[in-house]
Amino acid sequence: MSVTAARGFVASGVRAGIRRASPDLALVRSLPRAVGGALWTTNRVQAAPIVVSRRHLELADPQAVLVNAGVANAATGTAGIADAERTAEEAAALLGLESEDVVVLSTGVIGVPLPMDKVITGVREAVGALSADGGEQAATAILTTDNGPKQAAVGGGGFVVGGMAKGAGMIHPRLATMLAVLTTDYPLAPGEAVELLRPAVDASFNRISVDGECSTNDAVVLLANGASEVTRDAASDLRFAEALEEVCASLARQIVEDGEGSTVLLEIRVSGAASDDEAVAVARRIATSPLVKTAAFGHDPNWGRVLAAAGSAPWNGGFAHVDPSLLSVAFDDVIVFERGAPTGLVPSLVGAAVTIALDLGLGQGEAGYLASDLTYDYVRLNAEYTT
Amino acid sequence: MSVTAARGFVASGVRAGIRRASPDLALVRSLPRAVGGALWTTNRVQAAPIVVSRRHLELADPQAVLVNAGVANAATGTAGIADAERTAEEAAALLGLESEDVVVLSTGVIGVPLPMDKVITGVREAVGALSADGGEQAATAILTTDNGPKQAAVGGGGFVVGGMAKGAGMIHPRLATMLAVLTTDYPLAPGEAVELLRPAVDASFNRISVDGECSTNDAVVLLANGASEVTRDAASDLRFAEALEEVCASLARQIVEDGEGSTVLLEIRVSGAASDDEAVAVARRIATSPLVKTAAFGHDPNWGRVLAAAGSAPWNGGFAHVDPSLLSVAFDDVIVFERGAPTGLVPSLVGAAVTIALDLGLGQGEAGYLASDLTYDYVRLNAEYTT
Repeated sequence: MSVTAARGFVASGVRAGIRRASPDLALVRSLPRAVGGALWTTNRVQAAPIVVSRRHLELADPQAVLVNAGVANAATGTAGIADAERTAEEAAALLGLESEDVVVLSTGVIGVPLPMDKVITGVREAVGALSADGGEQAATAILTTDNGPKQAAVGGGGFVVGGMAKGAGMIHPRLATMLAVLTTDYPLAPGEAVELLRPAVDASFNRISVDGECSTNDAVVLLANGASEVTRDAASDLRFAEALEEVCASLARQIVEDGEGSTVLLEIRVSGAASDDEAVAVARRIATSPLVKTAAFGHDPNWGRVLAAAGSAPWNGGFAHVDPSLLSVAFDDVIVFERGAPTGLVPSLVGAAVTIALDLGLGQGEAGYLASDLTYDYVRLNAEYTT
Repeated sequence: MSVTAARGFVASGVRAGIRRASPDLALVRSLPRAVGGALWTTNRVQAAPIVVSRRHLELADPQAVLVNAGVANAATGTAGIADAERTAEEAAALLGLESEDVVVLSTGVIGVPLPMDKVITGVREAVGALSADGGEQAATAILTTDNGPKQAAVGGGGFVVGGMAKGAGMIHPRLATMLAVLTTDYPLAPGEAVELLRPAVDASFNRISVDGECSTNDAVVLLANGASEVTRDAASDLRFAEALEEVCASLARQIVEDGEGSTVLLEIRVSGAASDDEAVAVARRIATSPLVKTAAFGHDPNWGRVLAAAGSAPWNGGFAHVDPSLLSVAFDDVIVFERGAPTGLVPSLVGAAVTIALDLGLGQGEAGYLASDLTYDYVRLNAEYTT
């Protein structure tokens, strides 16, 4: 169930002491030569490791991914770029790789330089600790405000897709997302990985929101080393795509469930939209509405706030098409508003999850979205601590 | 300093008992025949009074504005439309007006029908209580979660612009905004009011955010009755436009200062953007960032969160132009990040207001924005109560 579930991958997680006393440096390596690809944050402000790793991927397929937690190495100027490059060089030298074979990722506080002595010492330890059993340690070492590791693996048909992710706040992806490292022993051709990542990420990491924020350090990296020696055909390709999406969906759900301060998981389903794109826009607007999210925290089936959010979903320079007279809303399958009028039903929201379903009554477009609620603890975590 | 500051306006505020024990029904009337105009919420889900009042304004210039608090009469189906229409008819009959002369506005909880017996009784009381001294009572009767009335008046050159507004949550306007009633004795021609409102509202109510929400009931109405008998020329027109913007700006600032749970006022200034539109997009993104707003609550000069928000400002289907290597950020005039690198300076944020200034270093575009912080009390107000 980890990033080393697929054959030919080793990992480690060590304590470099970058900003805290818990493990904070993770390394994942493919033993056979791998192909791979990545999707990156679309934020205009990109952290130094993102700048360096994008350049590396233009030169070579990734063979190893090094992740540090505690310091994001973002907004650190040209010195930050040099630090990220030097970290990759050190790992590459110890692994017998070229520096462009190494992807470096960072997560943590913005604007603080990496403590390079600690990082370099940590890299040496991490290389020495690499093992096929190291997935869990690696998944633990990449966490920041997360409460626990996020791991997933899906097998079948002779191959495995595994992965790990981190993320609890600053979660609201736009094309790319929080940090996730995905591995598989399924054989891919060079250049295929990124094309296969796009739809899987779009259906998973791009459909979750904790707080509507878009990080400077988001990345999803996929390494495929072919160690399963599966013979590919159309059916196996389909199974691989499904397994990849399943792993991404599992990791994405784990991230929302562990959203900063979260007590309730909101599952938002929009159907009957004029198009799938508009369904996503409406679902995302509800998923990011502070009034919907505080109501969920208060176990209040406040469908009026859902309507107000649905009616103001940014789309195409205006708002997505919504006609209240055609609109229906249900909380946990209890219809509270039906084609323009309240039904008078009041659902009882007691669980740790609530499903909010909207039928816009306009067309065939549909989308799902997962979101956390907005709580005192979210405010506390982000007001009291510099993250 | 109220909505009756200009000559020829009377107002009242009474307790109709719509949903609470405090004053909840306000009436503003022009004694001479007025011209006027309004801007409305752009939410696709529009409350019944908005639907009815828009229709009225197509038929006639507004002579009176009736506002109830406690129940929004939104998402109430065709019965809600009939209730809004009947309320206007009752007021018109008592005032000797046609029903299309009356603008009706509602604010409060969504999805609940107006208690029409109480509303009708209240309308009769409100008509009977109309007085040139009734501005303060009217401003009090339109409040919901607000802590106090919002009023403003600017005079000079022989005329006055006055106004009142309400709004504390669900504040993040898009073209139109929360409820505001503006009055003036400056002489305007029919059709002019709405054209003059647009720039004033765009520079004031459209530049504030409490929680990024867009209400179903937002409206700004301007009544101009010409009672000052000022002779218009280009100079007086300019003074009127300035006075109108000044009143709007004062009311907008009062709304943010009274934002739900707010403890800190954030004044965001963006300069050096590629265009004014992009400056607005960046400022709005910072103004709505939960991480920036919780940091402000914690008096934490967390400029990394400001950078991350600035880099992901929705604009034109992507993100607004931001180049971190050209970007500078200051908190209360202390430069913390200068053209791509941290300065190491740490401002001390102790006051009830903080100015965050960004110079994007790209062009001449600039914009200002006012926002509240995100606090425990915002969560409490919106989780514990149905609003």
